[in-house]
Amino acid sequence: MRNHARALALIATLSVSTAYAQDPKGDVAWDLLAGLTSEVGPRMPGSEAEARARVWAEARLKALGFSKVAVEPFRIRGYVRGRDEANLLAPIPFKLAITALGYSGTTPEKGIEGDVVYFPTLDALKAAPAGSLSGKIAFIDHAMKRNQDGSGYGPYGQVRRAGPAIASGKGAIGVVIRSIGTDSHRNPHTGGTTFPDGVKPIPAGAVSNPDADLIARIARSGKAIRLSLTLTGKTTDNLPSGNVIGDLPGRDPSLPPILLGCHLDSWDLGTGAIDDAAGCAIITAAALKAQEGGAPLRTIRVLWAGSEELGGFGGKAYAEKHSEPHALAMESDFGAARVWRVQFNMADKALSDRIAAALSPMGIVRGSGKADGGTDVEPVIEKQKLSVVDLNQDGTHYFDLHHTPDDTLDKVDPAELAQNVAAWAEVLKVVANEAGPIAAAP
Amino acid sequence: MRNHARALALIATLSVSTAYAQDPKGDVAWDLLAGLTSEVGPRMPGSEAEARARVWAEARLKALGFSKVAVEPFRIRGYVRGRDEANLLAPIPFKLAITALGYSGTTPEKGIEGDVVYFPTLDALKAAPAGSLSGKIAFIDHAMKRNQDGSGYGPYGQVRRAGPAIASGKGAIGVVIRSIGTDSHRNPHTGGTTFPDGVKPIPAGAVSNPDADLIARIARSGKAIRLSLTLTGKTTDNLPSGNVIGDLPGRDPSLPPILLGCHLDSWDLGTGAIDDAAGCAIITAAALKAQEGGAPLRTIRVLWAGSEELGGFGGKAYAEKHSEPHALAMESDFGAARVWRVQFNMADKALSDRIAAALSPMGIVRGSGKADGGTDVEPVIEKQKLSVVDLNQDGTHYFDLHHTPDDTLDKVDPAELAQNVAAWAEVLKVVANEAGPIAAAP
Repeated sequence: MRNHARALALIATLSVSTAYAQDPKGDVAWDLLAGLTSEVGPRMPGSEAEARARVWAEARLKALGFSKVAVEPFRIRGYVRGRDEANLLAPIPFKLAITALGYSGTTPEKGIEGDVVYFPTLDALKAAPAGSLSGKIAFIDHAMKRNQDGSGYGPYGQVRRAGPAIASGKGAIGVVIRSIGTDSHRNPHTGGTTFPDGVKPIPAGAVSNPDADLIARIARSGKAIRLSLTLTGKTTDNLPSGNVIGDLPGRDPSLPPILLGCHLDSWDLGTGAIDDAAGCAIITAAALKAQEGGAPLRTIRVLWAGSEELGGFGGKAYAEKHSEPHALAMESDFGAARVWRVQFNMADKALSDRIAAALSPMGIVRGSGKADGGTDVEPVIEKQKLSVVDLNQDGTHYFDLHHTPDDTLDKVDPAELAQNVAAWAEVLKVVANEAGPIAAAP
Repeated sequence: MRNHARALALIATLSVSTAYAQDPKGDVAWDLLAGLTSEVGPRMPGSEAEARARVWAEARLKALGFSKVAVEPFRIRGYVRGRDEANLLAPIPFKLAITALGYSGTTPEKGIEGDVVYFPTLDALKAAPAGSLSGKIAFIDHAMKRNQDGSGYGPYGQVRRAGPAIASGKGAIGVVIRSIGTDSHRNPHTGGTTFPDGVKPIPAGAVSNPDADLIARIARSGKAIRLSLTLTGKTTDNLPSGNVIGDLPGRDPSLPPILLGCHLDSWDLGTGAIDDAAGCAIITAAALKAQEGGAPLRTIRVLWAGSEELGGFGGKAYAEKHSEPHALAMESDFGAARVWRVQFNMADKALSDRIAAALSPMGIVRGSGKADGGTDVEPVIEKQKLSVVDLNQDGTHYFDLHHTPDDTLDKVDPAELAQNVAAWAEVLKVVANEAGPIAAAP
């Protein structure tokens, strides 16, 4: 109870004293979100900025009353961005809005030039004959559309994840994709790609959707397209990263904790507000809010994972280091729009019914899919066969902003952020007070 | 009538054969808009691209059946963009989304650095003591809000037009403003500024609204702000520009023509779709549509003006060259959103009533303000005391896109574009068939 009282006192203090607070009521989640995006800024995996974020996170979690706050370091293979430029050279000159993909190959400082081969889909690229792209730059188009559950990201994201390696295998000297995103702004969407062993990394970038529209129009007109491409960033081994964890101790320390995940790192084009400062703000504020009626039975642990964006390094490191048992895992890494659905991976139907009943008055429906957490908690879920609750956020607009320069604080609606915190707190009040085992579905 | 028939035949042909046509029905306005933005692209005043645009425009107007199509050259003082970069150095490192303003001063290639003095308004800057900005970079904030008639652009635009010179007068080494725009995307709004004789031009740029939000948050926190600024563009004299004009002859060549204005040039960050390819598309398609019932009494002339963006050079050149009498002038240079209001500067109330009555079934209301045309026709209106009809477009979202990289084809709604053409054609069918003098209000 002492921790609980201290936490509540600190909430009041911090919400007034935080330099960047905007909500006149004072709000832990907003303060964390505004602080991380404004006092730290972009937090690329393995960067100096991500290291500053860990220092900031450790101080904030301690100030909020978390105990056993710890930074847990690991090393990663990262991508250090250089200069990203591309220009249409023919049929008209035009400076394209481009970003390098993570793990892109590196061009010389003066860039490369090539004729473009246009592929309307990833399947069209796959069907191109071996060697047919020698000396060429491949352009891969697609038709990703927005939807509420974000399920387009899996299939359409393959253009980014797998497309560059396929183009390289057919001899391309570079590859440009239509951004994996649903907006129509001149802001490209970055994200990681992969070049499997034996495949030569080639320069790989994404142009904004309006730029891709122009390239597609030109391709339809039958005119030849020529591009210059300068992407001087470098894949770099052995960069420092780390997780930050902190506990709000439960009344019964013998019970395994509830684990809440988010990620501290972000892409570097924006300030990582929706991806994923918002997630860390939500889980942390909810963990504190769940103390309001008195500390629950179980410890609640927050995991602010490092280097999620380049391959989920933080989640893997956590699972490796933390072999102690956990009760259940949850993650917030899909922006800050309102929670509309809850899904479970839970053997105890009565328990999941109680959670769904607690959320129902908020207009949150129960889905029939299987909860899987997210990248930062999946490794420990897999290893320990943990039960999971997913609070699904409305993803209709998520891929308008995802991995773009536009992922900034102004995009978050404080009322929707607060709805997330309230929903998470409802779940925590149930699961953190459950004395018996909380098993995953068989 | 021969011209009319030829024009109609060509409309049908062109709408099918144009490489970039998207509208399956074939549509002159859309084809012009898609063509100018895709086949020419950005068209900076005085640039090689603007010259290509004149060649393109001349060919298109001829192909559409216009007669007396002519390119009328003039020379301008232009601004040739260089490399635009800015970085927050303190309290956190952050790459800002910045654009140089037209006629900005020039930094060395390696840029400049300075401590920032934050001014919440232009008035606050004006109130700063003489010499108080020596060695500093001024940041000018403001609170422009969206509105339907775009009337915020006059007062808030002064931050861009006058702010840099004021900062220079107080000793600043550079100036950065919040973009004159109403969106919240990481796309800065460019536009011209002015340094009056005797005022030293200093590097002057605009950052996107989310960047300005961040700077404002830091300023409110009391932390010191330091910036680097690299704007290597140069003001350049004696660049070639020009207007393109074309006529659809009326049945009575002795009557002065109706003059319809737009501008062919654009800023260079986007492709100038709403500013002002749409305007040229609208007036030209409407002039042709007004021929549908047979050529009207009066000649309709289109003026696709050059170098509007840097000081209305084309409109001035037209007024100087064309001392022959005109009957009435109109202009389209406010995007492609639907026409919601008509206003007049016209002595003959019965005539304006007939126009308003023709527009009323389209849901277009009559306003009580005085029509003034626009930058490209104002000089000839002033010189000849011409009557004017303004078809006001909905400007609610215009300053989301204005002068940004986001001014691209995808932002235009084909249905709204068509509504503009239809409204303009209604007006033309009345005024171009008016036999008597069409005088301005006294």
